[in-house]
Amino acid sequence: MANSVKPLSLSVAFSQQHYHNHQQIPSMASTNHILTLENLNPDVITMEYAVRGPLVIRAMDIEKELDKGIKKSFSNVIKANIGDAHAMGQKPISFIRQVLACVNDPSLINSANYPSDVKQRAELLLSGCAGHSIGSYSHSSGIEIIRKHVAEYITRRDGGIPSDPQHILLSTGASEGIRNILKLFIDKDSRKKKKGVMIPIPQYPLYSATIAEFGLGMVGYYLDESNNWALNIDELEQAYKKSLDEFNTQVLCVINPGNPTGQVLSRDNVEEIIKFAYKKKLFLLADEVYQDNIYEENLKFHSFKSVMKSMGKPFSQMELCSFHSCSKGYMGECGLRGGYVELVNIDSDVFTNLQKMISAKLCSTVLGQCAIDCVVKPPQPGEPSYDRWLEEKTTILNSLKDRARAVCEAFDSMDGIECNPVQGAMYAFPRIEMPQKAIDKAKSLNQEADFFYAMQLLESNGICVVPGSGFGQKPGTYHFRITILPQGNVLRDVLERFKKFHNKFMKEYS
Amino acid sequence: MANSVKPLSLSVAFSQQHYHNHQQIPSMASTNHILTLENLNPDVITMEYAVRGPLVIRAMDIEKELDKGIKKSFSNVIKANIGDAHAMGQKPISFIRQVLACVNDPSLINSANYPSDVKQRAELLLSGCAGHSIGSYSHSSGIEIIRKHVAEYITRRDGGIPSDPQHILLSTGASEGIRNILKLFIDKDSRKKKKGVMIPIPQYPLYSATIAEFGLGMVGYYLDESNNWALNIDELEQAYKKSLDEFNTQVLCVINPGNPTGQVLSRDNVEEIIKFAYKKKLFLLADEVYQDNIYEENLKFHSFKSVMKSMGKPFSQMELCSFHSCSKGYMGECGLRGGYVELVNIDSDVFTNLQKMISAKLCSTVLGQCAIDCVVKPPQPGEPSYDRWLEEKTTILNSLKDRARAVCEAFDSMDGIECNPVQGAMYAFPRIEMPQKAIDKAKSLNQEADFFYAMQLLESNGICVVPGSGFGQKPGTYHFRITILPQGNVLRDVLERFKKFHNKFMKEYS
Repeated sequence: MANSVKPLSLSVAFSQQHYHNHQQIPSMASTNHILTLENLNPDVITMEYAVRGPLVIRAMDIEKELDKGIKKSFSNVIKANIGDAHAMGQKPISFIRQVLACVNDPSLINSANYPSDVKQRAELLLSGCAGHSIGSYSHSSGIEIIRKHVAEYITRRDGGIPSDPQHILLSTGASEGIRNILKLFIDKDSRKKKKGVMIPIPQYPLYSATIAEFGLGMVGYYLDESNNWALNIDELEQAYKKSLDEFNTQVLCVINPGNPTGQVLSRDNVEEIIKFAYKKKLFLLADEVYQDNIYEENLKFHSFKSVMKSMGKPFSQMELCSFHSCSKGYMGECGLRGGYVELVNIDSDVFTNLQKMISAKLCSTVLGQCAIDCVVKPPQPGEPSYDRWLEEKTTILNSLKDRARAVCEAFDSMDGIECNPVQGAMYAFPRIEMPQKAIDKAKSLNQEADFFYAMQLLESNGICVVPGSGFGQKPGTYHFRITILPQGNVLRDVLERFKKFHNKFMKEYS
Repeated sequence: MANSVKPLSLSVAFSQQHYHNHQQIPSMASTNHILTLENLNPDVITMEYAVRGPLVIRAMDIEKELDKGIKKSFSNVIKANIGDAHAMGQKPISFIRQVLACVNDPSLINSANYPSDVKQRAELLLSGCAGHSIGSYSHSSGIEIIRKHVAEYITRRDGGIPSDPQHILLSTGASEGIRNILKLFIDKDSRKKKKGVMIPIPQYPLYSATIAEFGLGMVGYYLDESNNWALNIDELEQAYKKSLDEFNTQVLCVINPGNPTGQVLSRDNVEEIIKFAYKKKLFLLADEVYQDNIYEENLKFHSFKSVMKSMGKPFSQMELCSFHSCSKGYMGECGLRGGYVELVNIDSDVFTNLQKMISAKLCSTVLGQCAIDCVVKPPQPGEPSYDRWLEEKTTILNSLKDRARAVCEAFDSMDGIECNPVQGAMYAFPRIEMPQKAIDKAKSLNQEADFFYAMQLLESNGICVVPGSGFGQKPGTYHFRITILPQGNVLRDVLERFKKFHNKFMKEYS
């Protein structure tokens, strides 16, 4: 397999063992099981998802130990492993939650407590629901009026380039949308080469997990750490070429802004990538869920669609799927599971089959769909909720910007750590100059060195991060992903505990 | 492939063509597509889901034609194709919606308008959410306190047989749970026989669709229509035996109460099925989403788990997954997408891998999880919401009972239609004595005769039902599924329009 598969598969082996040690599954009847590891779907065994892997399971155990009164040198676990803003104390956007309260209990629409635009939105959404209830199934693609609002949002965002509501599918978070599209590429014919899917390394492990689960071929292309995680076309070219020995490479995934790497692609870079995809006949997947999370003054989000369309033929006719979500941005509504995919230039037979495929799942959560509606069509100037909405949004985005800088500076100031600027998204991905003694120690425990480091950090200081091996990294380099989401005193606490741990670790293993 | 696959695949062919004719997809760029029917995942092409198939697409088109003022002999389309209670005017249960409103906008917890038990429940659920917000991700298995409530519910329901919250996984509707479990059985090794999954015929097409999508082997066993759709062990035996030529049959799915057939299994019958599964080493899947929907006085729901556990060893040690949902019952909250699966006696390595697999999807919708909480732990006598809750629930269930009888009697009274009693669930599945001339006419249109019948019904009278071929049926028999959910005047209108159509159809083709 191409690039960086080794660290990912090593972490699998560990995880299997670790889940066992820590899940405390009550012993089940030890009869002769019909379904066992021997005949379980082998792709399920292979797949791995580090963001919720063994470190998080151990973090939850430690929390329970603390609850039971077991003494530690820290009083709480801080889970900086996942981009989960509300879990870190971020407050919901009032407009979204008021609309959701009203569609749940329409008697609130008559109450004096909510602004009129909230009530109007709730009415509009209910009018899109069969029987005027969010308890009815929607069309599998999502409620029509919401898809229309999504298309209007995209059109505005892309400076007037039209978007068609019929090519928007609402999904249970962006994850489901991404999985639905990747599923189209499955081919189990063992006489043929597997279809290869190009993903960045480091990558968000939904991709490696889904590629493994679906039995597709993973083709990693390295981002250039020395150049602030830039996406280098020569590297794309090389990874693609190398992949062809093993795979029929057909898909190119780009995450922009980057997760876990936080870089924001320039317009020129997006254009180069599109040209490369055209040349190699690659189907483009643009993971653009962090499109609202850009912190550096001089940087701007350029959607793949807008660049592709503005390049004219033949590029404007290329196949592209772009994903968005209500889980990130300024709203951070992860638990609502709202998302969408826009399909551009997809073959109409393929589209028909995709619609048929998702129809068996009936529909995505209607409340998640309503949340997406509020995200793509927020209050406008002059409307009663506008000022409050703008203030909440601006406060959150400004605070994220401050935290992006603070986290990066704090890590960069530590000896033996280097951290690229967090231009966007919600994570820092610092590099550790791992001492050889720590590498050897980890090896003796059958662990990756960065896993060992992260586990020590968790056990001794209660900070949960995700080791770089869960995302992929150049062999011999070691990283971790940490969210920039802890707030105020908690963030200061995280960085202090981290510094204390790191200095001790480096001293111990130098 | 075993049994009844022919009608299912025939309807695929039609559907491909039909989706095309009626989706009115704006023409997309006719460039050289990378992903086309030629290289699309072949299992996606094969799969079919009749409940949302071509008839429903045509129904939506007709609705749009009516909106545009195109004259028809009817003024509205009635979609009796899907078990979607709220779409048919059923009102939500106040307790559920008030709790959901409060967790969305916690300021409502301080309002005077909601009963104290609603507020306490909302507080309890929020205390189970990270950061006290339903906008944070939950554990992939679901919020711990809700899984505990589910286990308590199951224990109560099953007369004290214990249920373990650690073996409950919350899911996005029951559909996702069923798909997650079936996914474990995928095996792409083309040197081995496919794993066979036994499903009833007629069946709920989620099963045939998922089995096709996952490349598993579909093994249909016929329910005995002449004996009120009973599940006959000889037929199970025969279907199993026949399947072994082609498949390694390993899973037995039972839907109880039946969908689309409405039968309720007796305790003895459940016991026989368990013994059969034990003998053949079959992993049991019990689709029990209609456990609250039983209408005949002398019938009772017997969960597979309670029967299995009460049978003692070795049966009590068998592997079983049981599914439930908030979409059916008296609450009918389809759009909220809440569901759960209880895993009984599953191999612990398999369980570990299942947990890992679902972790990549992050979590099911937290609001759907909250809805499940309200369903498994409704208000208790003495609590402020109890009386209202009981009244709403009883009214709905009594009304469903009346409608089950009314629908069945109406069809049974029509010449050329026979209808078994609707003992449970939400559907009637009447049989049409199809005139030969109608069969010939359908054949000339390359359609199944029941599809032809249902399409005529829709076009001429605006009633949307699902043809029996979408569920499977004995060759040479013709059925349709119609929900019992239309209410009051609408139900009378449906039955009148139906009778008018049917008599005309029979006259025309006799």
